[in-house]
Amino acid sequence: MICAPKRIPEMFRRARDVKTLLLDVDGVLTPGQIVHSESGDMLKFFNALDGFGIKLARFAGLRIGIISASESDAIRHRASDLKVEVLYLGRYDKLNAYESLKQELRISDGEIAFVGDDIPDLPVLRKVGFPVAVHNASQPVKETAGFVTRRGGGQGAVREVIDFILHAQGRLEEMVEAIQAHL
Amino acid sequence: MICAPKRIPEMFRRARDVKTLLLDVDGVLTPGQIVHSESGDMLKFFNALDGFGIKLARFAGLRIGIISASESDAIRHRASDLKVEVLYLGRYDKLNAYESLKQELRISDGEIAFVGDDIPDLPVLRKVGFPVAVHNASQPVKETAGFVTRRGGGQGAVREVIDFILHAQGRLEEMVEAIQAHL
Amino acid sequence: MICAPKRIPEMFRRARDVKTLLLDVDGVLTPGQIVHSESGDMLKFFNALDGFGIKLARFAGLRIGIISASESDAIRHRASDLKVEVLYLGRYDKLNAYESLKQELRISDGEIAFVGDDIPDLPVLRKVGFPVAVHNASQPVKETAGFVTRRGGGQGAVREVIDFILHAQGRLEEMVEAIQAHL
Amino acid sequence: MICAPKRIPEMFRRARDVKTLLLDVDGVLTPGQIVHSESGDMLKFFNALDGFGIKLARFAGLRIGIISASESDAIRHRASDLKVEVLYLGRYDKLNAYESLKQELRISDGEIAFVGDDIPDLPVLRKVGFPVAVHNASQPVKETAGFVTRRGGGQGAVREVIDFILHAQGRLEEMVEAIQAHL
Repeated sequence: MICAPKRIPEMFRRARDVKTLLLDVDGVLTPGQIVHSESGDMLKFFNALDGFGIKLARFAGLRIGIISASESDAIRHRASDLKVEVLYLGRYDKLNAYESLKQELRISDGEIAFVGDDIPDLPVLRKVGFPVAVHNASQPVKETAGFVTRRGGGQGAVREVIDFILHAQGRLEEMVEAIQAHL
Repeated sequence: MICAPKRIPEMFRRARDVKTLLLDVDGVLTPGQIVHSESGDMLKFFNALDGFGIKLARFAGLRIGIISASESDAIRHRASDLKVEVLYLGRYDKLNAYESLKQELRISDGEIAFVGDDIPDLPVLRKVGFPVAVHNASQPVKETAGFVTRRGGGQGAVREVIDFILHAQGRLEEMVEAIQAHL
Repeated sequence: MICAPKRIPEMFRRARDVKTLLLDVDGVLTPGQIVHSESGDMLKFFNALDGFGIKLARFAGLRIGIISASESDAIRHRASDLKVEVLYLGRYDKLNAYESLKQELRISDGEIAFVGDDIPDLPVLRKVGFPVAVHNASQPVKETAGFVTRRGGGQGAVREVIDFILHAQGRLEEMVEAIQAHL
Repeated sequence: MICAPKRIPEMFRRARDVKTLLLDVDGVLTPGQIVHSESGDMLKFFNALDGFGIKLARFAGLRIGIISASESDAIRHRASDLKVEVLYLGRYDKLNAYESLKQELRISDGEIAFVGDDIPDLPVLRKVGFPVAVHNASQPVKETAGFVTRRGGGQGAVREVIDFILHAQGRLEEMVEAIQAHL
């Protein structure tokens, strides 16, 4: 993670309250490639390190949600493999999606981390207790976030966030040990 | 953006006149990969940051056009998603396409930006008021352009150009704020 | 290869005993991309240098096996092209798969190299005589392995391991010469 | 191009005799990715800069040929788009393919450039007048070649070779100018 030095202790403290991790898709769970085929199909490039990180986070009791402007079955396939149940797709109005989600899950801003990469993510990043930008995010997003990941989207950025949160909560090593017995 | 220091003020001034942004596809809106499958399909790898940049540019009143030597439905799918209406595909003779387009849209060279990466783009780059080469362009294109982007094609190069133009026009921050209310 | 300097002579010595090379898939034989299409298909990105390395290793008499948590026909296609016969797919419990494999092939821990990238690989990495992490592996895997490759998964990491083993066994140059007559 | 300083003048002189450019595919015209889908399809990632380079080379009167161990319709699609007529596919025995090709085209070793990346390319690299390794080639190939490209396979390495040959022949600038009138 890269952040202004004075913010590190504050973000470390805030990470302790995180119970739900919300993720954008294009540029965050993927490198941001929008892949079209001649025949009309589309591809999304997710990442295995992020995938195991999401399993680890769920194993540790964190809730995982996805809010994306894309409306895509490729996302549904990945979310289903990773047992991510909270899925808001086709939502450019991410703030409205976020408010619905908060009510549905009965959680407060301080308990939520959100990882984004571009301008449509700004309204939610300004609300959550733990706002993160990926390395490849656009400038206004990097300036708004409390953290910028070292890894790019689709290159392990989400895993980096999960490791940071569990580490701040003092549970990373324990969870890494425990999950090996449940594989 | 990278350019000879003495050219920066001139390119900044020229950007103020830009009303239409024309884009090559392979190497500019994509990293230049030509992807064939055994079964005869083809893929194009576009970028989400560029995609939102094009929305932002249209929101700001810029017109967006595509001139490509490729004749590809993958481009048509992407253009349709981004509501790009000016599409000249299968055109190796980019200068003729450019002249038709200028007449059709009743615009002058000084109002046009063009982003290219290779030799077929040279004749148009020599004409437009705001000629840009992507980072991965071939040498003669880099020498002809007024600007070379820091990011590669399909890696956000087009977004970088749009941000520069709107910034030079004094409208970037205002547009970034305003579009959030319209998502 | 990168490793703590004092470990180099030990890993070099251990490589001499290696008779079987076991490989994880996602992140090791691929860069770890999990690629979904809208239509329900999936892709795996393997590497040609690794592929020829596996041919070279088999030509030199090494046995090659794959243990993956993925259950994927894309892996089966690649394994079939490379004549890899030992395939344990859909196995999150890699340690159990490993123990079955050891019995089936009648080999001992010291004769086995394993290349992994993430936490599910840890139990097997702790067992084998020659444990390797790829460059892009998660932190606990890098700390457990005797070696970290310079190249990333799907970028020639497996070839690097094979070259190291054959070099330590004093057979690399001879095999490179000999295989050219059998192409 | 990177090469031992004393070899530069020699390679420059040899380039003047080149009339035919032979290319390997995986790792040379592509980055070496072997992409399998669940459904049995395969992908090859070629590059647009290489593609235009091949057009430029043909325009300048060079003959282009492909010798690959792969037997792939994806290569046939690309070769057809680029009007490459000399295609030897499914040939692990590249030296035999090379000898047939020399007879078929009535050319001598000194008139031929070959670009390779791995051990099966060595026998041909030792024969041709102008032997090139791509940046991502395996070590024995880099040592055998007279040149190592700066760009990787599928990233413009072939374009770099074509530009070097035409430059050495004193025809690069003229061809770049002339082809613009024929687009």
